Amino acid sequence: ILSTLLAQGVLERLNAGEVVIGDGGFVFALEKRGYVKAGPWTPEVTVTHPEAVRQLHREFLRAGANVMQAYTFYASDDKLENRSQTLKITVTQINEAACDLAKQVAGEGDALAAAGVCQTPSYLSCKSETDVKAVFKRQLDVFVKKNVDFLIAEYFEHVEEAVWAVEVLKTSGKPVAASMCIGPEGDLHGVPAGECAVRLVKAGAQIVGVNCHFDPMTCVKAVKLMKEGVEKSGLKAHYMVQPLAYHVPDSTYLGYTELPEFPFALEPRIVTRWDVHKYTREAYKAGIRFIGGCCGFEPYHIRAVAEELAAERGIMPAGSEKHGMWGAGLEMHTKPWVRARCRREYWENLLPASGRPKCASLSTPESWGVTKGHADLLQHKEATTTQEMKHALEMQKKAKSSG
Amino acid sequence: ILSTLLAQGVLERLNAGEVVIGDGGFVFALEKRGYVKAGPWTPEVTVTHPEAVRQLHREFLRAGANVMQAYTFYASDDKLENRSQTLKITVTQINEAACDLAKQVAGEGDALAAAGVCQTPSYLSCKSETDVKAVFKRQLDVFVKKNVDFLIAEYFEHVEEAVWAVEVLKTSGKPVAASMCIGPEGDLHGVPAGECAVRLVKAGAQIVGVNCHFDPMTCVKAVKLMKEGVEKSGLKAHYMVQPLAYHVPDSTYLGYTELPEFPFALEPRIVTRWDVHKYTREAYKAGIRFIGGCCGFEPYHIRAVAEELAAERGIMPAGSEKHGMWGAGLEMHTKPWVRARCRREYWENLLPASGRPKCASLSTPESWGVTKGHADLLQHKEATTTQEMKHALEMQKKAKSSG
Amino acid sequence: ILSTLLAQGVLERLNAGEVVIGDGGFVFALEKRGYVKAGPWTPEVTVTHPEAVRQLHREFLRAGANVMQAYTFYASDDKLENRSQTLKITVTQINEAACDLAKQVAGEGDALAAAGVCQTPSYLSCKSETDVKAVFKRQLDVFVKKNVDFLIAEYFEHVEEAVWAVEVLKTSGKPVAASMCIGPEGDLHGVPAGECAVRLVKAGAQIVGVNCHFDPMTCVKAVKLMKEGVEKSGLKAHYMVQPLAYHVPDSTYLGYTELPEFPFALEPRIVTRWDVHKYTREAYKAGIRFIGGCCGFEPYHIRAVAEELAAERGIMPAGSEKHGMWGAGLEMHTKPWVRARCRREYWENLLPASGRPKCASLSTPESWGVTKGHADLLQHKEATTTQEMKHALEMQKKAKSSG
Amino acid sequence: ILSTLLAQGVLERLNAGEVVIGDGGFVFALEKRGYVKAGPWTPEVTVTHPEAVRQLHREFLRAGANVMQAYTFYASDDKLENRSQTLKITVTQINEAACDLAKQVAGEGDALAAAGVCQTPSYLSCKSETDVKAVFKRQLDVFVKKNVDFLIAEYFEHVEEAVWAVEVLKTSGKPVAASMCIGPEGDLHGVPAGECAVRLVKAGAQIVGVNCHFDPMTCVKAVKLMKEGVEKSGLKAHYMVQPLAYHVPDSTYLGYTELPEFPFALEPRIVTRWDVHKYTREAYKAGIRFIGGCCGFEPYHIRAVAEELAAERGIMPAGSEKHGMWGAGLEMHTKPWVRARCRREYWENLLPASGRPKCASLSTPESWGVTKGHADLLQHKEATTTQEMKHALEMQKKAKSSG
Repeated sequence: ILSTLLAQGVLERLNAGEVVIGDGGFVFALEKRGYVKAGPWTPEVTVTHPEAVRQLHREFLRAGANVMQAYTFYASDDKLENRSQTLKITVTQINEAACDLAKQVAGEGDALAAAGVCQTPSYLSCKSETDVKAVFKRQLDVFVKKNVDFLIAEYFEHVEEAVWAVEVLKTSGKPVAASMCIGPEGDLHGVPAGECAVRLVKAGAQIVGVNCHFDPMTCVKAVKLMKEGVEKSGLKAHYMVQPLAYHVPDSTYLGYTELPEFPFALEPRIVTRWDVHKYTREAYKAGIRFIGGCCGFEPYHIRAVAEELAAERGIMPAGSEKHGMWGAGLEMHTKPWVRARCRREYWENLLPASGRPKCASLSTPESWGVTKGHADLLQHKEATTTQEMKHALEMQKKAKSSG
Repeated sequence: ILSTLLAQGVLERLNAGEVVIGDGGFVFALEKRGYVKAGPWTPEVTVTHPEAVRQLHREFLRAGANVMQAYTFYASDDKLENRSQTLKITVTQINEAACDLAKQVAGEGDALAAAGVCQTPSYLSCKSETDVKAVFKRQLDVFVKKNVDFLIAEYFEHVEEAVWAVEVLKTSGKPVAASMCIGPEGDLHGVPAGECAVRLVKAGAQIVGVNCHFDPMTCVKAVKLMKEGVEKSGLKAHYMVQPLAYHVPDSTYLGYTELPEFPFALEPRIVTRWDVHKYTREAYKAGIRFIGGCCGFEPYHIRAVAEELAAERGIMPAGSEKHGMWGAGLEMHTKPWVRARCRREYWENLLPASGRPKCASLSTPESWGVTKGHADLLQHKEATTTQEMKHALEMQKKAKSSG
Repeated sequence: ILSTLLAQGVLERLNAGEVVIGDGGFVFALEKRGYVKAGPWTPEVTVTHPEAVRQLHREFLRAGANVMQAYTFYASDDKLENRSQTLKITVTQINEAACDLAKQVAGEGDALAAAGVCQTPSYLSCKSETDVKAVFKRQLDVFVKKNVDFLIAEYFEHVEEAVWAVEVLKTSGKPVAASMCIGPEGDLHGVPAGECAVRLVKAGAQIVGVNCHFDPMTCVKAVKLMKEGVEKSGLKAHYMVQPLAYHVPDSTYLGYTELPEFPFALEPRIVTRWDVHKYTREAYKAGIRFIGGCCGFEPYHIRAVAEELAAERGIMPAGSEKHGMWGAGLEMHTKPWVRARCRREYWENLLPASGRPKCASLSTPESWGVTKGHADLLQHKEATTTQEMKHALEMQKKAKSSG
Repeated sequence: ILSTLLAQGVLERLNAGEVVIGDGGFVFALEKRGYVKAGPWTPEVTVTHPEAVRQLHREFLRAGANVMQAYTFYASDDKLENRSQTLKITVTQINEAACDLAKQVAGEGDALAAAGVCQTPSYLSCKSETDVKAVFKRQLDVFVKKNVDFLIAEYFEHVEEAVWAVEVLKTSGKPVAASMCIGPEGDLHGVPAGECAVRLVKAGAQIVGVNCHFDPMTCVKAVKLMKEGVEKSGLKAHYMVQPLAYHVPDSTYLGYTELPEFPFALEPRIVTRWDVHKYTREAYKAGIRFIGGCCGFEPYHIRAVAEELAAERGIMPAGSEKHGMWGAGLEMHTKPWVRARCRREYWENLLPASGRPKCASLSTPESWGVTKGHADLLQHKEATTTQEMKHALEMQKKAKSSG
């Protein structure tokens, strides 16, 4: 079986009805491990500490992931150049190293190497279609040279920019997946989720879906709307979902960035492996076949995806040698009451306490009043150079102190 | 400065009034990364996947840890032999590999290599002092051969066994730290925390404290009681604390193992980096100078320990190049409301929501009615061979179904 | 001013743009005081303990209510006859006594006496329009004889029955208010809220709205939909809202009866007086001018309605001599930190804790799978005679024990 | 049986091993009904609206209370004179009316009339023993004249003042109960609960216990300590407990007044009738035989006390004709899922949700840093004249704005 799988690309797998398991979130995992800075979130670690990136890839592979996504998030010229004046590595080097690492580890198991682009400062500062596409093209050139297996346009808040990205990636001839960071409410211009999907498919994406910004169940809901939209239009596509590993039912239009806990106090919201089981089942039932994770998804979360679908796929991940299904390993625990927890019903029905009695269950999102369709307002508020940002921050401090 | 530090052992540093930063929890971190099995919790990964262990050591080093603790937890003959009949590695190999990895990474920075023993199945099944000490001795032989910098007797629920461990470790002539997994209530025989500390110091431990089982603030409280006990007795010692990274105010006598969420649904209880700042300050104010973490402590938690004490120590950890103090890196974020969070007051005062409105804040611990001083009962309930465990589990299932 | 008001009926007041303040919930308040039985909820107390009813009327009057609603809830032949075989009072006596008490207390202040009908067992057991209308007619005969000021058809889950009630009440020539116990989702046949309102207005109701079953803000939302529906149809009406005094955001289609806490553990959900201020303002801003309460609304809640609108109405309720606005009376407290709470900002922004750390924030509603539009199913499940109920309960117990 | 009971006084009943059920809280209940002002909390309603007080007495009687406690709380000269310059009723009139009402309703059933004194502004402003006793004496003169059945010295934070009160009340020759508003931590001078009890018994109190300030279980715990103290001293007494009907596990030394929710946002903390069942059982098991309630206790809470002890006492309260034991009345409900709740297990095990996901479970008490034994500091902070209070408030506002 394995050799057959290895011979196939992402579309062959999906066309055959197989499930493709994505990986988890590199940005947040590597921030916690000490290699990525929260705020700029840029991926120069692929050059400075390749062993850390390689290890994380391996952990996801071992957990059952079939996609090693090169860590090229925010690795565009306009992002990296603005962010760090002291960076003595070229953007091309970062993208190349990312592809090399993904390909190397993909080759160690049943996985494909993918690389991708995401939303750009250029778009948010209202650069032209030509300018934005040029940014994508520079990253694509590396991906083609490194010959990754397929391409992903992901983390787009505006379908317009996502379509541009797909159009650029399509020029490579490789399969293209397109994933937006939207919820069931649609994109930041107010385009409904179903309509976003239709536009992406028309632009050439063979796989469409959502990633980041919302919690697992909310993301599945959004992809369902995309699927409905695509099917109503008489089009065809495969579907993907790579949600947060955080419970964020209180986020509204802009996802978890609005929540007061973002990004340094999200711990109480982290999903358990059992939450991932439920999410995986829900995604599978919805007809989604590319199932992975985004920010917060650690290797054990991806292992839970693989374990939930073990029967359907006939494969257990390598990492499950270190994980009894539904907690079966607890049968070996020294405490009798812990041994009594080695069963599915226990974990499926547990409602875990926070240990924080002075904290509430839900927060009030704050996003400076940005609501559905207020894309202009939002763009206006986005400042892309350090200079602009410092100014905005000053303004903001003044507003606070006087208000 | 650095070279001076490197030349010094743990006691020299503590005697000089320096803070020694411990590392975090290998068992839980490597379980999530896919290399350790929850239930038996044994460390054969040091042989099977050394690169995973090495990477975690490096992350703690980078986060500022001054101690690379060899991953020898539960690596005793009686534990490993019972746990796995299919394991084709010797216990000695596991201990050796663990020491090698710790020493290698310690050599890459300002860190010492330590190795340790912990509570044994032999003690819990009422073996003699001679038998239990023999178990410790076999591990110690490896540690001496590998010439680690100092030794730790940790995770003991019974001071009697901890004293035996210290007595064995002392024969090596190396510095010995002794750390029990007890809270302010004392050990499982009902010996008060202060009295435990006195016995350990009298047995020869130069550093005493607690690790695991309770949350940061509760552990600091327990060590304070130890310090009071030692000082009242006219003895002298250094103090260490390596708590859980979980909020467990609802745990009682046996710590977090009693909580329904142990070990697979503890996510909502994970402490934030800001909780670690508060804990570090509290520990420092209490006169504790060996400050680290246990289960749940990830590299970013240890980085928070180092950052909180940056002024006192005059050192920032290497990993802080990827972490703005108090969230300063958010000044670079694209969303203006997130940029507004780049300040200490914001994170210090935030009460993070769980995103789980159907879950409570606190749980009801369950421990089969074990209470303070019921050590006999507890020992009776502990079954150490697979056979015994299976039997206990059967009994338990019957009790449940008939009850 | 007062004499002018006294001379006017409910429609004159509403036509003049005045606010009419309703009273609170008799059923729940008198259950707690010991005079009404939870389950059957029938109002024979008007005959057996008139002083208890009179006192509650007086408290609402003193709190600022302009409507003394005769306690005729569930006082229909088919309800009372089935419920109690030992009741030696006629249904007519109960209705008469209720009207007498309401009129007596209304005469003591600026209030009108109303009487009403509500949904009947006859309708739920699929009796004919003629039969159901006959039930309403028997109550109406008493209301006409006692000459109350206006009539209310309230607590209807099905607009069909509500329309029948309005048609009967209209024959009296008195003003008719119609209030359904529905939320924004519409009635139990699946008729949208706006459409319900249109049908009620067409049937002759001059005032339409909702009462009971949902929390204040949800009820205001439902009445807004009603208003939109009526205005779109080119019709005219006045609007009323009399919600629960419980926070029930987790209730779905059938309101608070679905929640596990109904009816004996709703305490943690009780709204504060400050919640009522917000509700009152929201209702007023929505153009609703008949503002009161239903189950859970105690006199102090109604006082809060009156105080919130004191400026608009130019009237403070008599009961406010015993209530400093926004807690001003605390200036007299003996503890300094309590004195510091004598101000609006304090109470407006307080998020009150439950004192129950082992309880969640939200519940999972249970309603045997009844969902929108499943009215038939629901009716089938309703058994109206004791005999039928006992049978259903047996069935249910069997289902539980075998399931 | 009834006639025998009626013939007996409180001590005869307690000596015979009977349970005496107290009543609930007049101050909070009448505040909600519109007759008492939060802040000063004074009881002039006994004169101005006697029917409201009488009705509440009757509800408690009907609920099963054996004690009609005259509403004389804070009815001392020094309290009432300071509070209201416009009050045109004498303090004597208020006390007389209170006694008349209690006696009248007590005569309507199996109840005794009691009257009492509580802590005085005179004591808090450091008046002499002579002065404070004179205040008590003026109230006592009325109680003797009105010939109530027994006397209660209640709501004392300082045992010194409570002893003075007992000494005065003892001069009447009537039975004296003494109840402090303390928790297990002891009084505000730092006198332990057990020692407080001993002093009160030595002063002549035949019944000792606690009321108000803490929740039911905490109050039972405090009375247990009192009982232990009395028994260790070789003395004899009966025990009483009349707690809050609020869950306040987060209150510390000064009880619920410290909590941010006091007094206008305590709703989420209100205990259910099932909580009262548990409390009653706990109190009974602890050997407490005078069991009632204080602030927040409504008639249905007292009914729950009587119902829990129905088997032991062989008496069901009159009000239980309107309350099926353990929710049995729900068997008559129209919704099948509500009918399924007519059983003890359901209500005993329910953990009720708050419906407030943005609120925490516990609060942080605020009390200006007053801690155990800081009685002087506390007294200093108490200002008893309006003048002093206004000044303190000013100081406080300044402190806030500059801090």
